Amino acid sequence: CQGDVAVERGGVAAHCRGWVGGGAGGLGVFGTTSEANSHDAGERRHLLERLIDGGIAPGVLMPGTGCCALPDTVTLTRHAVEQGCFGVLMLPPFYYKGVSDDGIYASIAEVIERVGDRRLRVYLYHIPPMATLGFSREVIGRLLKAYPGIVAGLKDSSGDWNHTRSLLETFPGFEVFPGSETHLLDALRLGGAGCISATANINVAAMHRLLQVWRTPAADRLQQELTAVRASVQKFPMVAANKAILAEVRQAPAWNAVRPPLRPLTDEAKQALFASLT
Amino acid sequence: CQGDVAVERGGVAAHCRGWVGGGAGGLGVFGTTSEANSHDAGERRHLLERLIDGGIAPGVLMPGTGCCALPDTVTLTRHAVEQGCFGVLMLPPFYYKGVSDDGIYASIAEVIERVGDRRLRVYLYHIPPMATLGFSREVIGRLLKAYPGIVAGLKDSSGDWNHTRSLLETFPGFEVFPGSETHLLDALRLGGAGCISATANINVAAMHRLLQVWRTPAADRLQQELTAVRASVQKFPMVAANKAILAEVRQAPAWNAVRPPLRPLTDEAKQALFASLT
Repeated sequence: CQGDVAVERGGVAAHCRGWVGGGAGGLGVFGTTSEANSHDAGERRHLLERLIDGGIAPGVLMPGTGCCALPDTVTLTRHAVEQGCFGVLMLPPFYYKGVSDDGIYASIAEVIERVGDRRLRVYLYHIPPMATLGFSREVIGRLLKAYPGIVAGLKDSSGDWNHTRSLLETFPGFEVFPGSETHLLDALRLGGAGCISATANINVAAMHRLLQVWRTPAADRLQQELTAVRASVQKFPMVAANKAILAEVRQAPAWNAVRPPLRPLTDEAKQALFASLT
Repeated sequence: CQGDVAVERGGVAAHCRGWVGGGAGGLGVFGTTSEANSHDAGERRHLLERLIDGGIAPGVLMPGTGCCALPDTVTLTRHAVEQGCFGVLMLPPFYYKGVSDDGIYASIAEVIERVGDRRLRVYLYHIPPMATLGFSREVIGRLLKAYPGIVAGLKDSSGDWNHTRSLLETFPGFEVFPGSETHLLDALRLGGAGCISATANINVAAMHRLLQVWRTPAADRLQQELTAVRASVQKFPMVAANKAILAEVRQAPAWNAVRPPLRPLTDEAKQALFASLT
């Protein structure tokens, strides 16, 4: 359970520099794969500062800041803005279920009001498979109207391309990122800016290539390759699978560590995962 | 959104003394109705100390301490033990879905190990309607075997009496509390110790009466009355409804305040609620 510390000692900033060098346009640190919600607010602030001290430009960072408790979300969001991060990825408070649109709206609006900083750029984190709650089109429209220029975009981890497409079509100019590269090309063709994906941890160079050539005939084949890799990893628990691959590729076993309630992959699962990728 | 502060100024400790005086054998503070997860760890520690300073005996307190982040759960649990609380009510970490039994077990075991205090009494908080995850019988059995005397009981807020009954029958001596007084008499007849219920906030005296006379012929009628009150309140969003009733009964409007993502009842809903209770 102390694996996170080991990873940090191993130089998570160096790993992040590698991703940026490999073509990532930004780093969505402290999302689901980062196990953000398994770390307390102090750990998250500390690690963000470590990344910046380690040479990651704050202008490429989009840390996750959405917690169940409004004061935590405000603290982390304010800290990210003060550190110069270009945006934050904001989960809705996710303990209560059956919450009204009005309650979701109030949650985000209250954070924006309390942070009270024009530099803030909020990217809504729509991930019903984990948070259960999500952002309806009504809530998105209301937030865009109340906070133009501050509410900037959304990561759509619904896994439902029809949902992503409908957001791209309904809100032109709003930066909608599919939460998986499986729909990267589809999104680019509809004016999307890219994708924010867990498997960018292990396949960022190929995604970067597609971004460069997506208007050429090579695009569809590159998309098929991206989709195939994603499909292989998705057969396993995603967070542990990403970390197992990093541990293997970088020969750094500390990357296998996850915090409860997650568990590392068994050796058997790792062998099956690696076999399906080669 | 600052309502919590107003409530505290209004004397939440005084209200708690009223519940204990009214027959509550213990106070499950910082549960779902307390909006525990909408408060950060510092607020929760502060408020617990305020209650104790305000005259609530720590020996009747069972604060909720289960958070998504293991370090938060450890901090709050250790604090509760140090304050002399008789037990803690522990949610499983509830962000990730599809988590294994092994991961749930590890989450609770790791907290117990890190707190490392024989005075600790853990009551598992089983509330799938909110946390999505719950505690399977396999996990409960494994925890009881590893930590006898420390893993003491469970609040079953599944809303499924068959589930509560099966726990009472499977784990004799393990203190299983239904999360609603609707099954208080059923639980007492199977050796249960009582119930831990949101609507104890508004109906604790009647529950206390049933506890005193549950072996007499008067029990079934008292149970019917409890069930009827609960059913009336349950038609409305439970947290806001409880607070609206307290605000009305105590003529203290600050009790209406809830934090986002929850919203207070509308005036219309309040009127309908009060009408159904009278």
